[in-house]
Amino acid sequence: MTMANITRLRKNIETLKAISEPCNGGVTRIGFTPKYREGVEYIKCQMREAGLDVVEDDIGNIYGRLAGKNPQLPAILSGSHLDTVRNAGAFDGIAGVIAALEVARMLRENNIQLDHTLEVVGFIEEEGTQFGIVLLGSRFITGEFTEEDYDRISNESGETLRDRLQAYSSDNKVIPARRQPGTIKAFIELHDEQGPLLENTHSDIGIVDNIVAIGQMVVNVHGFAGHAGTVPMTMRQDAGVAGNLLATRLTQYVIDRYPETATLTIGKFHLEPGSANCIPCECRFTLDIRSGKAAIVQEIISYVQSESIEVARHCSVAIETEETSFKEPVEMDGTLKGIIKSACEECNLTWQPMSSGAGHDAMIMAGISRAAMLFVPCVQGITHHPAECIPWEDMGKGTDVLYNTILKIDRL
Amino acid sequence: MTMANITRLRKNIETLKAISEPCNGGVTRIGFTPKYREGVEYIKCQMREAGLDVVEDDIGNIYGRLAGKNPQLPAILSGSHLDTVRNAGAFDGIAGVIAALEVARMLRENNIQLDHTLEVVGFIEEEGTQFGIVLLGSRFITGEFTEEDYDRISNESGETLRDRLQAYSSDNKVIPARRQPGTIKAFIELHDEQGPLLENTHSDIGIVDNIVAIGQMVVNVHGFAGHAGTVPMTMRQDAGVAGNLLATRLTQYVIDRYPETATLTIGKFHLEPGSANCIPCECRFTLDIRSGKAAIVQEIISYVQSESIEVARHCSVAIETEETSFKEPVEMDGTLKGIIKSACEECNLTWQPMSSGAGHDAMIMAGISRAAMLFVPCVQGITHHPAECIPWEDMGKGTDVLYNTILKIDRL
Repeated sequence: MTMANITRLRKNIETLKAISEPCNGGVTRIGFTPKYREGVEYIKCQMREAGLDVVEDDIGNIYGRLAGKNPQLPAILSGSHLDTVRNAGAFDGIAGVIAALEVARMLRENNIQLDHTLEVVGFIEEEGTQFGIVLLGSRFITGEFTEEDYDRISNESGETLRDRLQAYSSDNKVIPARRQPGTIKAFIELHDEQGPLLENTHSDIGIVDNIVAIGQMVVNVHGFAGHAGTVPMTMRQDAGVAGNLLATRLTQYVIDRYPETATLTIGKFHLEPGSANCIPCECRFTLDIRSGKAAIVQEIISYVQSESIEVARHCSVAIETEETSFKEPVEMDGTLKGIIKSACEECNLTWQPMSSGAGHDAMIMAGISRAAMLFVPCVQGITHHPAECIPWEDMGKGTDVLYNTILKIDRL
Repeated sequence: MTMANITRLRKNIETLKAISEPCNGGVTRIGFTPKYREGVEYIKCQMREAGLDVVEDDIGNIYGRLAGKNPQLPAILSGSHLDTVRNAGAFDGIAGVIAALEVARMLRENNIQLDHTLEVVGFIEEEGTQFGIVLLGSRFITGEFTEEDYDRISNESGETLRDRLQAYSSDNKVIPARRQPGTIKAFIELHDEQGPLLENTHSDIGIVDNIVAIGQMVVNVHGFAGHAGTVPMTMRQDAGVAGNLLATRLTQYVIDRYPETATLTIGKFHLEPGSANCIPCECRFTLDIRSGKAAIVQEIISYVQSESIEVARHCSVAIETEETSFKEPVEMDGTLKGIIKSACEECNLTWQPMSSGAGHDAMIMAGISRAAMLFVPCVQGITHHPAECIPWEDMGKGTDVLYNTILKIDRL
């Protein structure tokens, strides 16, 4: 049985890890920067060495093409993103590009020519660190963004995407970013789980059912300021006390009712005036609510609203809740999920279905193509951190499943 | 019966209110600034007009002296501070200086010469806004600070107290700040309550039993960061969730157990990394714990420590608690409290004993003299805010009690 070359996977990933802005032990390679260009040129070089035809699109996504027998057929795409957050680990995104590249190398070594052209894709700016817009590269592919957005999108320094592209662009062969639906047979993305579930359940592979629905809210509590020493406890309208109580009740509700099927995260919690000896008059906190089922996110949002009324009454404060965004879940393609499952079984690997709590390029590509994802385990679920780690053996297993999956898609 | 002239009280307070740095509707007159000098010169002018002998000490406290019949006797001191926080109300501190000045005017108008010299005092920098050290003026009077501290104390711009004094000092008659214990018979301070108790209980006067014990703590919760979407609720070590729960339990404990006799305030609450889509790895919050009884503050501190262990276990996080300061309570003089009580009764005013939850110059002066405080009501307990308000009628009542109290102290 054909198996991925782990030494080669490791060498690619470790080489790319070293192409980084100076940072605190991790990798910083933000889209549209000279370091990003350096990383991209390394991958393009590796693609050429593997016998692929390399092209870059006008937004900066790169493709390594392995021609199929029948050039009339739509292409099979596999890959992920090449950019990182600041001081990231070495695997997030990168692993999916290198795994797809390895699949192309395995095909060549086995003298297999697919019917369909295989395209190894490296998306730009999935993390959104440069412009504050996530999934930028793939959103230009599906046409959600077009050249008209070049002047609208700008970074914190006020530099537009158009300016940045002028500084960034290469002299290589450039194609338009936009792809038409009929030109892609399937998109398949390998990614590290970025969570602890596979490790904890000793599963080799996670097959993504859907990318979760995400509700984001801001809660504003309005109380009444006062001196920490002069207002008796029973006469206070302490915005912080109400905020802490509401936060505690909301978290406990999700733990009790949806322990496995939803998450609620309070990442920011701010008090005004913010002095140790002042009773807070204002408390503001964020809520990030996710579930594979949009109805569950909606139910939790309703609970937030009703519990806010209850806590406001209990604490003699006013509470406003604002739903700042709501993203519907994106289902992965059922046929492709079935194929990944068969590929796992062929490789004698265990798998489990799961939701992806994080957004991925696959959710964008699903707009113009069948799309699916497979997750590989990630130690302790650590991600966006220098310590992020896919064990090399698991990286090999994931690539084996990807290889078998692509062979099966080709026959679909 | 002699009564305070409310029109005069009001004119003094409103004139002083207008002597302010530009600010958002309130008063900003920080110690050792040109605006503070302007305020002080207005009061000195009013003191002279009332027939008082005006002196300034070398730290910037001012005195208006009304000579007694017997210059060998120690002086009776009454007053408060003339500095404000930023964008303050018009009464905090100021009310006590103007009330004492009015008492001197009432004595003169009634042709009463006390046996003891009466000194109307205006302390500098009680709020600590200039140097971050509260009660600065009075602490130079008691000798806690001396000229040796001139170079040690500096503001945020790095300017020392010595430099600031050179820019600030007047050409007026200057005496040393330090006072010896035998030279002061009693210190009596009128102040607004800065809390809602008198208003809510419809009491005219608060007689301060003690200035509370204050324990200050910092709580540090150490959890484990993670992506908001990828770590199931049951596998999290969320520092913020633990912090919210601990904060809620601590507040509820004090409300249940010490509703009238202690306060616990959480004025700062901070999460790291502080992103809406990240599980917090760190949570840091402050605790301000106050009670008239030091043993109650100590008991609450013990509860914080034991409950932290319980919450750490429950939430799978580590919690460190640090006691950053502990101030013993300061008892007010029993004889003086009895005299204020008699004075209230003589004036047909209602009174109630209470703790002062805030620090005051009286707690410093208690180190070298009998000291006591009387509180007047303050609308809705609002303080350190442009809306701070002592109703003029209440200001008159407080001044009447102060007048009668000083007459009685003179006969003590």
